[in-house]
Amino acid sequence: MKATVMYAAGDVRVEKVPDARLVEASDALVRVTHACICGSDLWPYKKMARSDVGNRMGHEFIGLVEAVGADVRTVKRGDLVVAPFAWSDGTCVFCRQGLQTSCLHGGWWGGTDLDGGQGEAVRIPQADGTLVVLPVARDHALMPSLLTLSDVMGTGHHAALAAKVGPGKSVAVVGDGAVGLCGVIAARRLGAEQIILLGRRPDRIALAKEFGATDIVTERGEEAVARVQELTDDLGAHSVLECVGLEEAVVTSLQLARAGGAVGRVGVPQDNNLAGGIPFWKNVSVGGGPAPVRAYIEELLPDVLEGHIEPGRVFDRTGPLDDVPDGYRAMNERESIKVLIEF
Amino acid sequence: MKATVMYAAGDVRVEKVPDARLVEASDALVRVTHACICGSDLWPYKKMARSDVGNRMGHEFIGLVEAVGADVRTVKRGDLVVAPFAWSDGTCVFCRQGLQTSCLHGGWWGGTDLDGGQGEAVRIPQADGTLVVLPVARDHALMPSLLTLSDVMGTGHHAALAAKVGPGKSVAVVGDGAVGLCGVIAARRLGAEQIILLGRRPDRIALAKEFGATDIVTERGEEAVARVQELTDDLGAHSVLECVGLEEAVVTSLQLARAGGAVGRVGVPQDNNLAGGIPFWKNVSVGGGPAPVRAYIEELLPDVLEGHIEPGRVFDRTGPLDDVPDGYRAMNERESIKVLIEF
Repeated sequence: MKATVMYAAGDVRVEKVPDARLVEASDALVRVTHACICGSDLWPYKKMARSDVGNRMGHEFIGLVEAVGADVRTVKRGDLVVAPFAWSDGTCVFCRQGLQTSCLHGGWWGGTDLDGGQGEAVRIPQADGTLVVLPVARDHALMPSLLTLSDVMGTGHHAALAAKVGPGKSVAVVGDGAVGLCGVIAARRLGAEQIILLGRRPDRIALAKEFGATDIVTERGEEAVARVQELTDDLGAHSVLECVGLEEAVVTSLQLARAGGAVGRVGVPQDNNLAGGIPFWKNVSVGGGPAPVRAYIEELLPDVLEGHIEPGRVFDRTGPLDDVPDGYRAMNERESIKVLIEF
Repeated sequence: MKATVMYAAGDVRVEKVPDARLVEASDALVRVTHACICGSDLWPYKKMARSDVGNRMGHEFIGLVEAVGADVRTVKRGDLVVAPFAWSDGTCVFCRQGLQTSCLHGGWWGGTDLDGGQGEAVRIPQADGTLVVLPVARDHALMPSLLTLSDVMGTGHHAALAAKVGPGKSVAVVGDGAVGLCGVIAARRLGAEQIILLGRRPDRIALAKEFGATDIVTERGEEAVARVQELTDDLGAHSVLECVGLEEAVVTSLQLARAGGAVGRVGVPQDNNLAGGIPFWKNVSVGGGPAPVRAYIEELLPDVLEGHIEPGRVFDRTGPLDDVPDGYRAMNERESIKVLIEF
């Protein structure tokens, strides 16, 4: 069969590869009818080191089931199916909570061991957990939109959920690629009142407006931040969708958010720094900051007065005001947990 | 009056300063009865550059209202009050949503312009929005616990909320200072099933156990991560409370979290990098990662089939498999938003 193989940055070939086939009893074999190229495919296209064997490419596809292994129950030969960009067993603790990208027995398409979506056929591991049957024929007019469910539409939706988009909120979308544009659709669908797209190209701006963008910001960096401030009564956006992945875009996204707001990141991080790699790949959210204890005093006061909690036990030293300098020393040397001053 | 002034790292003095007094009509004047030293006071104690005027210190205090300005309505002379570690007007958009630390007209105690809590009296700006009256006498046995409501107990609670602690969850607490210990209290109060404290000192470990810690990890870094994995069926903790602020502790916290989990950061960031300063100070949450599109396909499919959303419009070029290499080029040069491949 023919499939797409990338050998190095800028070196993408469509060539003969071994035919896809069933291996495990939980596999399906899918004949691809529709596939596409992803913005994330461009990262290796820009910087992949040369490889002799090459990497099979593509992780977004629709196709017809040609054969299934003995254990497959939910799809059968002839079904039109869409595949998500990661395969998953559908039964592990993470799949059951809807985080199939962290499936304990799942993985990613392509590379050196598996078929990719940009080819004529694909072996589907964990077919029951992975594939979703489409109730339409392969020539249905909605096929392009259905194909986006394999990645970009779901990814824009994920950004919007992580950014806590909701009715009445102001949303900024960083990135005018397919994911950013789908982020606009997702923000509109979730009820956002104001949707600000940061983008520059007229065709993408026009499409974003049709998808529901209410404002367009063509500036970048600090100027974009200033413009979004103006558009949001100097408060910033409630929700920011980071749909690029470059550190500059991540920083801009953090700057665009108002106090108490949320940034939803789906741009594949290109800078594997602290803010990037660790929390991103496992979908860990990071929150917090200076505690609004004024609000919590009223919430926690009854528990203290009723004796349900005794946080005062953290004080292990008490003294008068003149004891303060030595109190600093004692805490700094970890001799004392916390010093109480009585007047 | 006497108050605490810091002039440089390691140079803390209790000395005569100008008497606190009412300035604005919204002020109150509070005679301090109880105050304390905070772990965050130790950061300048370790590294403050020398200052001729010095910084007034202290942001946690209880006291008796001695006088109020003409506009003050909610507190009166003689009331025993607790102050949160930041003052706030109680009426702005952020205060109304319970994020008083981002009050548009608020601020922080001490420094060069305001009194600090580690002194005999404090001028309270925005007294109505800031102070909370305590329904007890100043010699009440619970005074230490009530004082923790000004910062460390509320801060531990904030960490637990940001880390999404809830019934049945496994929680890791990084840091065995007063905030970490209060984080244990907060996690227990919010129903956590497993509470793992990372700490080393026997007195703090003993107190953490009394507060509800179920497991203690004395290792640090990668070894601590491995130990927490063991304690959580190799999944990691649902919720991680970062109560230190050093980059090493933040990295460990991110590593301790399981996929789909949450890290709540309240340790004042000492490394003002991307992950640190910007989102922390305004309490912006950052989430997202690879989208679990397998879950979203089922959620979004009806909207596509019914024509409510048309994400397929992001495709602006269609070709056969052999078109793929040029499709990469076109997308890389931003000539095309997204390329569809039909078989």
